[in-house]
Amino acid sequence: MKKIALAIHGGAGTIRRSQMTGDLEHEYRAGLENALKAGWNILEKGGTSLDAVEAAVVSLEDHPLFNAGRGSVFTHEGANEMDAAIMDGKTLEAGAVSFVKNIKNPIKLARLVMANSEHVMLAGEGAADFARQMHAEFADDEYFFTEHRYRQLQDAIEQGRIQLDHAASTDGTGPLSDAATHERGGTESIPPAVAGGIFSDTGTRLSGDTENNPHSKGTVGAVACDANGDLAAATSTGGMTNKKFGRVGDTPIIGAGTYAYNATCAVSCTGHGEYFMRGVTAYDLAARMKYKNLPLEEAAAEAILRLTEIGGEGGLIAVDAMGNIALPFNSEGMYRGFVTWNDAGRVEIYKS
Amino acid sequence: MKKIALAIHGGAGTIRRSQMTGDLEHEYRAGLENALKAGWNILEKGGTSLDAVEAAVVSLEDHPLFNAGRGSVFTHEGANEMDAAIMDGKTLEAGAVSFVKNIKNPIKLARLVMANSEHVMLAGEGAADFARQMHAEFADDEYFFTEHRYRQLQDAIEQGRIQLDHAASTDGTGPLSDAATHERGGTESIPPAVAGGIFSDTGTRLSGDTENNPHSKGTVGAVACDANGDLAAATSTGGMTNKKFGRVGDTPIIGAGTYAYNATCAVSCTGHGEYFMRGVTAYDLAARMKYKNLPLEEAAAEAILRLTEIGGEGGLIAVDAMGNIALPFNSEGMYRGFVTWNDAGRVEIYKS
Repeated sequence: MKKIALAIHGGAGTIRRSQMTGDLEHEYRAGLENALKAGWNILEKGGTSLDAVEAAVVSLEDHPLFNAGRGSVFTHEGANEMDAAIMDGKTLEAGAVSFVKNIKNPIKLARLVMANSEHVMLAGEGAADFARQMHAEFADDEYFFTEHRYRQLQDAIEQGRIQLDHAASTDGTGPLSDAATHERGGTESIPPAVAGGIFSDTGTRLSGDTENNPHSKGTVGAVACDANGDLAAATSTGGMTNKKFGRVGDTPIIGAGTYAYNATCAVSCTGHGEYFMRGVTAYDLAARMKYKNLPLEEAAAEAILRLTEIGGEGGLIAVDAMGNIALPFNSEGMYRGFVTWNDAGRVEIYKS
Repeated sequence: MKKIALAIHGGAGTIRRSQMTGDLEHEYRAGLENALKAGWNILEKGGTSLDAVEAAVVSLEDHPLFNAGRGSVFTHEGANEMDAAIMDGKTLEAGAVSFVKNIKNPIKLARLVMANSEHVMLAGEGAADFARQMHAEFADDEYFFTEHRYRQLQDAIEQGRIQLDHAASTDGTGPLSDAATHERGGTESIPPAVAGGIFSDTGTRLSGDTENNPHSKGTVGAVACDANGDLAAATSTGGMTNKKFGRVGDTPIIGAGTYAYNATCAVSCTGHGEYFMRGVTAYDLAARMKYKNLPLEEAAAEAILRLTEIGGEGGLIAVDAMGNIALPFNSEGMYRGFVTWNDAGRVEIYKS
């Protein structure tokens, strides 16, 4: 069998067993498994890695539990603003969209940008105009509206907080309250100027989910190696709950949240985006392979170590052209799964 | 004297002696010299590299001849949409804005994002809201309207072409018409899918300036090393003439067009942005220093060689914490200048 491989993620962060119900965990696992199947079916039949990562991400976008596509969180204005990127490791071509609204599958639009425009990244209204020219599928607000996400927004507004997808509880109760959480990580690495900034109403840079809600989820992504040894990466997100000011995270940034190159690896990241941007994390992993001649797993571990050093929290999935995979993260959990030519694969959520 | 250093650029591309008048060249040189002075005055007095690169870029933004701030080109809709980014090599903090309109100095807004928000990148209307909260200076359309830029847009619309800043003439006349131009480079590297894409009305991806106008200019940027050995990079652009669909280029992308880290280098890029994004060029240079232990000049030369390999055209300026500088480019020219602790410096335009 050719050395095909597929890995996916559904977001990383503070995901605690204690806050998870059996039913919910079952739903997450089923969502991840379906996405793996969608991508693997393509790879098994000799399809391309690009088609496989797109199919896996579409499956996650269509699932209301994951923060991308249908399950996207709400901004401060009560809208869904989504970002996505895809990259072809064979040609280094890439497509990304940012701030798109009412696009059913942002990852499909990102691929259209790659295939049918001369640009890498289109944003906002312009991206919507492009989507109309390309006859991309739009969906009305009703499609994106999920009761849970909307309540999440109302809570965040009340608290005056921005919320990352998998932010920890801020109540500080429970046996895990001393663990490194988004909030503490953010506070420790807070630059002096930020403390007096406009986001500091509550004294925290990142906030928790006051409901202790393990529903809150991050970015989704997929990486694949096909039978030709061609790599591809795709990432999609619904952003941060209650975000303001048109924040762009790492997802649509080639080199930060998404990267693919046959000679090194395909990478999709998830976590506190600003740190992945400052660390140029996806390309950092590739550069460690290219310039230090590290194997994938070692380079991936180093990239996450570096992320930790600069104060960032999250994880990534990566694959190389030999069908090796790596799924490292420094957060409490990461929704993830993989299948490879020599491993039937599995779906996992927690660290251990 | 401490090993302070400053380098600036005012865009790269097809800049031909044959199309330049003495008066115009004088204006360009004066603009570059003023920007160098603005930054150098700060470094000489022991100021920070961040203040120096901001001051140099503000000077270039305020100059109507350079495509940033006041001299920004017009989009298809006749508006100026500007991008800018700044990065602090000491802390890895970064700030970027994209799609901002009527902001007098986008680089100042990028710095406010870095200093006063928890985010790295803000875009569009959200960035404008943030600017108002920060009391950033706005300017009316009249301020940005320059007769030359407006004519440039009208010409581009007539030709149905998008125009990069320093795109070559397309008339193919003159002694230099066989030289590698943006247009030819673009055509050679055109992916099959693009040939039938929405931008292919004229069969070219990038167009020339039908007036043979050497006014057309690109991104501006500055990199500096201060007396503490702290590095900073800043880049600002008015984008592409006649651009549509909300295209985001490399300028505001940390790792692509802008990057700074004390342990390696500060970099600001200019040229055909999509290739800098796909090549993650600014961070690629830093990674070659970090992981291959190359000195700045060698790493910079390799980064431009790699850019050339993937079909990209342009250049970059870079500085390290020892006050070394590099200003490589693969285009016909790059508006550039530098001053260092042991070199009185100079301003240059052409290759030789």
